[in-house]
Amino acid sequence: MRALAAAALAVLMLTGPAMADDLRGTGDLGLIVEREAGSLLVVDRSERAAIGRIEGLGDLSHASLVYSPDERFAFVFGRDGGLSKVDLLTQSVVNRVIQGGNSIGGAISDDGRLVAVSNYEPGGVKVFDADTLALVADIPMGSKTVGIADVPGSRFVVATWDTGEVWLLDHSADPANPEITRLEGIGANPYDALLTGDGRTYIVGLFGEKGLTAVDLWQDPPQATRFLPDYGRDQPDMPVYKMPHLQGWTLADGVYALPAVGLHQLLWVDAATLAETGRTELAGQPVFALARPDKREVWVNFAPPDNDKVQIIDVMTRKVTRTLTPGKGVLHMEFAPRGREVWLSVRDENRVEIRDARSHEVLAEIEARAPSGIFFTDRAHRMGL
Amino acid sequence: MRALAAAALAVLMLTGPAMADDLRGTGDLGLIVEREAGSLLVVDRSERAAIGRIEGLGDLSHASLVYSPDERFAFVFGRDGGLSKVDLLTQSVVNRVIQGGNSIGGAISDDGRLVAVSNYEPGGVKVFDADTLALVADIPMGSKTVGIADVPGSRFVVATWDTGEVWLLDHSADPANPEITRLEGIGANPYDALLTGDGRTYIVGLFGEKGLTAVDLWQDPPQATRFLPDYGRDQPDMPVYKMPHLQGWTLADGVYALPAVGLHQLLWVDAATLAETGRTELAGQPVFALARPDKREVWVNFAPPDNDKVQIIDVMTRKVTRTLTPGKGVLHMEFAPRGREVWLSVRDENRVEIRDARSHEVLAEIEARAPSGIFFTDRAHRMGL
Repeated sequence: MRALAAAALAVLMLTGPAMADDLRGTGDLGLIVEREAGSLLVVDRSERAAIGRIEGLGDLSHASLVYSPDERFAFVFGRDGGLSKVDLLTQSVVNRVIQGGNSIGGAISDDGRLVAVSNYEPGGVKVFDADTLALVADIPMGSKTVGIADVPGSRFVVATWDTGEVWLLDHSADPANPEITRLEGIGANPYDALLTGDGRTYIVGLFGEKGLTAVDLWQDPPQATRFLPDYGRDQPDMPVYKMPHLQGWTLADGVYALPAVGLHQLLWVDAATLAETGRTELAGQPVFALARPDKREVWVNFAPPDNDKVQIIDVMTRKVTRTLTPGKGVLHMEFAPRGREVWLSVRDENRVEIRDARSHEVLAEIEARAPSGIFFTDRAHRMGL
Repeated sequence: MRALAAAALAVLMLTGPAMADDLRGTGDLGLIVEREAGSLLVVDRSERAAIGRIEGLGDLSHASLVYSPDERFAFVFGRDGGLSKVDLLTQSVVNRVIQGGNSIGGAISDDGRLVAVSNYEPGGVKVFDADTLALVADIPMGSKTVGIADVPGSRFVVATWDTGEVWLLDHSADPANPEITRLEGIGANPYDALLTGDGRTYIVGLFGEKGLTAVDLWQDPPQATRFLPDYGRDQPDMPVYKMPHLQGWTLADGVYALPAVGLHQLLWVDAATLAETGRTELAGQPVFALARPDKREVWVNFAPPDNDKVQIIDVMTRKVTRTLTPGKGVLHMEFAPRGREVWLSVRDENRVEIRDARSHEVLAEIEARAPSGIFFTDRAHRMGL
């Protein structure tokens, strides 16, 4: 018995201190999508290093993810219709359902209880319990859906590609039967949308005609306004994947910095009047236009054949101040939340570059398998995601 | 030997699952200052409950704190000159120094490496290594200092009460010998200051004369502008502690909502022109004016004898829509980062109230010992703190 007790004590003493040292905060963690491998690289911003990898995520082309309020879990929306719940601390998949044929994105309610998935196949939106991934609601809309976001007041908002509508799903009374507000005539073929940082305006990009539509969600009923009527696709054969992403727009000093469609330009738009106030010439077709957190610069990446470049534009002068060539396939950029650093995926070179956001110099690199999206945990606290 | 192995295995099996269950994300945690007890209550927003208490923090009257980038650690600035580093996961004080006679606040650099403390006694600013709390720099300024903040570009900014100046300390080249920019003639007796959410403008409140001063940090050298020339202390015997806190201002839709000095009013100021655009009558002398994260409402608490009330003002109409009476001594308010809930300290009733931010109804209460400041971990990712 004494040997038993001694052994037990020895094991406890060995595991005790290790437990405190194994603890970590989650505020400086992140996940990087490794598309072809179907894995997620777990990274630590403070260490500027990978700390693990989560495998078995299926088809992660164009995958995106959202975080639980405690930052511990991420919900990954995959192109194979997979919805996976992963644990950053145990670095494992804790739950996974195949919920559709082809999912384009998702959102989590601000209380962390519901995860909504936007589907191409079979269209419409499905809502899941964030704890168990049990299906809570299934809302067919007769269309592929895009641009889903969480809106203050227990609502999800989404746009419909085929029917040109915006739907608001209010789940405050009964998540299984959300109250639906349906706005018609938004425009032809919404291909993406974003919610502004205050959660007030839902901006919808159109593929089937020129212009964008801004929906003011503070009005009851919400008010839709068309703007930039000359902005849009000119070439009939332009594929959707060459269209700029809306997800990169950030309000910079009361101004939207908007990647032009089919033009090598950044458009400056006054947020209050929705009128264009200027253009900046760029090195290629912009994909993401991302404001540095202090809003002093906008960083832009590009579609092929210019996807080896990143350009930096000063918000005050609206001039390109720097052209970087990080490498082939700069698919995504993500700033540290207070703006000290920016991380860039260089997919074709199997690495992630970390640069100082002010000097623009390379601080470190991390090996990764064909990396695409980079998602830091502070997104848990951002409106809409 | 077999018994030994079996015992070891048994212990490992018993401790293994417990370890995973003991893990938690830090994104939904918070600390609440318990002034008289010199302790910090550790809370979990998702559970709406206290999960622990950290004792031994000394004099915590008017104490504030900032978080490390990973959210695991907090640096607590105490009235007794104490600088304490606490670990939210082990719920313990991991380091503590008495660095001055009386400290009013502090800030952490955006890379988490340096902690700056603003001192009444002996005045000036001291900078510490965030890992070890070793003193890195000691900058006397011939004055008490107030309103310290972290500025993008490896800088700390602070105002001086006795000499009416603003100092910028640039630690990018040599943290032990920061490059100093000294702006004179800011105004008489700066008593508080705040950095706007984009890190561009440092707004200084004056006690010794009317008006405030806005310093544009994007200009080189920074440009100071006086505004609201009629705003300020009227009564010569007004104590500083009755002055409204600047820390509560949040840009709401391009507008500052500013608590008036010595008047029962909220002032609305256009952020671009710095001109007053209106006033709202209130139930008492406002202390904090805090915008809901979606910027649709401003919540105000009050100085005695009205510190049992909270008023809610609609940003669009600028009218008071609700007057709450949570209880005696509503010292502080803190919103969940995405705006679902608001937590209120009710000091004289030894509890913290949690309300739904839209319906305003009470969702839960937590017992606390004379609570004052409430600090959620998402502050780790906010500019300036």
